Amino acid sequence: MGLGSLRSASTAAVRRWRRGVPWAPPPRPRRGLGGVAPGVSESPPTFGFLFDIDGVLVRGRYVIPAAQKAFRKLIGSNGQLRVPVVFVTNAGNCLQHVKAQELSDALGLEVSPEQVILSHSPLRLFRQFHEKCMLVSGQGPVEENARNMGFRNVVTIQDVRKAFPLLDMVDQSRRPKELPPLTTDFPTIEGIILFGEPVRWETSLQLIIDVLLSNGNPGAELAAVPYPHIPVLACNMDLLWMAEAKMPRFGHGTFLVCLENIYKKVTGRELKYEALIGKPSIVTYQYAEYLIKQQVERRGWPSSICRLYAVGDNPMSDIYGANFYNSYIKAAGQARAQAEVKRSVGMADPRSEGHSELGKDLYVSLESCKSILVCTGVYSHHGDVPTDPHESVTETVFHGHRDFHFDPSLVEASYVVEDVNEAVELVFKKENWSQE
Amino acid sequence: MGLGSLRSASTAAVRRWRRGVPWAPPPRPRRGLGGVAPGVSESPPTFGFLFDIDGVLVRGRYVIPAAQKAFRKLIGSNGQLRVPVVFVTNAGNCLQHVKAQELSDALGLEVSPEQVILSHSPLRLFRQFHEKCMLVSGQGPVEENARNMGFRNVVTIQDVRKAFPLLDMVDQSRRPKELPPLTTDFPTIEGIILFGEPVRWETSLQLIIDVLLSNGNPGAELAAVPYPHIPVLACNMDLLWMAEAKMPRFGHGTFLVCLENIYKKVTGRELKYEALIGKPSIVTYQYAEYLIKQQVERRGWPSSICRLYAVGDNPMSDIYGANFYNSYIKAAGQARAQAEVKRSVGMADPRSEGHSELGKDLYVSLESCKSILVCTGVYSHHGDVPTDPHESVTETVFHGHRDFHFDPSLVEASYVVEDVNEAVELVFKKENWSQE
Repeated sequence: MGLGSLRSASTAAVRRWRRGVPWAPPPRPRRGLGGVAPGVSESPPTFGFLFDIDGVLVRGRYVIPAAQKAFRKLIGSNGQLRVPVVFVTNAGNCLQHVKAQELSDALGLEVSPEQVILSHSPLRLFRQFHEKCMLVSGQGPVEENARNMGFRNVVTIQDVRKAFPLLDMVDQSRRPKELPPLTTDFPTIEGIILFGEPVRWETSLQLIIDVLLSNGNPGAELAAVPYPHIPVLACNMDLLWMAEAKMPRFGHGTFLVCLENIYKKVTGRELKYEALIGKPSIVTYQYAEYLIKQQVERRGWPSSICRLYAVGDNPMSDIYGANFYNSYIKAAGQARAQAEVKRSVGMADPRSEGHSELGKDLYVSLESCKSILVCTGVYSHHGDVPTDPHESVTETVFHGHRDFHFDPSLVEASYVVEDVNEAVELVFKKENWSQE
Repeated sequence: MGLGSLRSASTAAVRRWRRGVPWAPPPRPRRGLGGVAPGVSESPPTFGFLFDIDGVLVRGRYVIPAAQKAFRKLIGSNGQLRVPVVFVTNAGNCLQHVKAQELSDALGLEVSPEQVILSHSPLRLFRQFHEKCMLVSGQGPVEENARNMGFRNVVTIQDVRKAFPLLDMVDQSRRPKELPPLTTDFPTIEGIILFGEPVRWETSLQLIIDVLLSNGNPGAELAAVPYPHIPVLACNMDLLWMAEAKMPRFGHGTFLVCLENIYKKVTGRELKYEALIGKPSIVTYQYAEYLIKQQVERRGWPSSICRLYAVGDNPMSDIYGANFYNSYIKAAGQARAQAEVKRSVGMADPRSEGHSELGKDLYVSLESCKSILVCTGVYSHHGDVPTDPHESVTETVFHGHRDFHFDPSLVEASYVVEDVNEAVELVFKKENWSQE
């Protein structure tokens, strides 16, 4: 089992995958160990892979052995990938090039930042907010990430704390000793970006609620609750994720559950999101397809990619997202047939209104996006869907986000396999692609 | 207005009320300034006061000037209180004798720890848990408080964190660098006490959920979610409280909103409380009446107390609680008339089953418990009930706890006054009691 292999792995000589941890590069692929013999040419790929990372390729700090086996199959004799591959993770509290380097170390191949989609990567498309004053929440290089995504006017939770010291009162040891002077020159906040789970949730929850209730002027007193409130963009809706612990850990989705329910309890109204970004949202898969196309062009493959295979461990995130995108592809196809592509793309994702220019940027040429569920992560250790994908899941607990309705068919994977190596074997077989 | 007086006060020479901050004691009461002239004796009191603290007597670090005026009226020529007084606060992250000292400094009279009820004080009555292994959550002297309440087998959130380092994964900088050895000798947790809002909510929320899902053995893996889960005792349900900031701050009730909704989202089931303690729960007012009786005995007043006046700023806590207790007094009175006191007391508070021996300890001799709402705290700055107490409040937002049903009549104060000084004047007038 996934965890079994991890256990034996983590107690034995499993390669640490943290950036900067030295390790010997894997041997160049030889015949029988994956890769194609020099001189043997293979037809250009018409399919590609989207790989989730946590629970599929790694567990916490450790590489899942099946991932290394799988990539030996994916790497050709020239040491390059035989098919286009994009890594789609809901991780967000890190930098794209750092994640790419971590993956390079873990998998023994050169992963470029252009192959990595973090939960917030599609924020680049939300240009209508790039000049507005945005409050950013999360941990790690949140401010740098925001600037890298194109936001030029960013304030952090820490900035708000410093400007309004009377607001953050939960931690008794951090309360101001003296009554501080009133801050009058703080900019009005015009929107909020929730990048990922922060540290000290009580501080971020309190200040975000203050910003929402004060219409972007925390510390001010308003007679009535402003509604609709200022725009909120949230990245990464995952409720839980699988690390080394036997039970899943809180993800950013759990932080959002707190924020939504506090807002509801205090105001009696629903917190509304301008957009929810990261799996399973459509915009993330549109962005993935866009990067896949770029790879095909860079590699000079003459064929175009018709089929995507999305491999993940989280039914509510990876599987729901891939199936959701697959249904969007079908809808887009029909719409295209009616020569109404643009309008169909604009309406395809109700959760991401703000960036409908994406419809103009991207042209859907895919035929399908199939979902493959592996048992090395959240799934086999959390019963939100039954092992048999054809069994009804209506009575089980829905771990998807509040704003994504529960449709049993969307959390049923096209295929269920043990691990990512079996996933690659399955796809190669279906595509009549050499296992060597 | 309350905040106005606070503003002028806090910018001017208002006495700091923190323990240890030196200040000159107030002048001994003289005629006309409150107090009764030496030699003039007054009839023994047949009524008493329950004072909330935050928003009634103090705001954050500052004494509300009206509180000092009120206590000049309450202190007799002998420098002692003319009527029995108990301070009932939902504050919990502190020690009883410390709070008593803070009040002594603030009000200029000797407040004894036996006059102070913190949110957790009634835990003394929950003897059936005193020998069990209890996980305690909160900040400040939580462990000491638990032991003072009679719990002999206590583990803290920090103990669980240290024993199971793989569980607390939100803060990336605090994740273990190496895979730690498995802990096998940690005691099975048999119950959870939520004393007050902790620091680093993500850590407490994650570990409490882990303890609930693992049946008291965090780090263990269970196939099914144990339900009903191990007992949870929660102190202080206040959603919000009023400090120096213009908008109310998060209270422990906000932490409970997070815990309840995460548990619901992850398991699909309701988090259940063995007991909810602190205002507005019945057990807290039973305990207050018990302490009032002790004061009457200590002072040697021949009369017994028939009427309590509860002065507070929070409709959902102080007013709801006083009215709830008043209805309980009526019910107990009727039951007594039917000589079925014990059974009636046992059933009086559905939220505090575990301690029905309280029914035997206490004998309800009160005739009424009237509620008085002041405008120096949460109330006038948060529109959960209209200014006119006779106006319907059904459409407003319910800030009470999930498990306390919203009954408009319970949040309608018997009287609404500007501040605590007006409250004392009103009561003295109703009781034909000298203002001097």
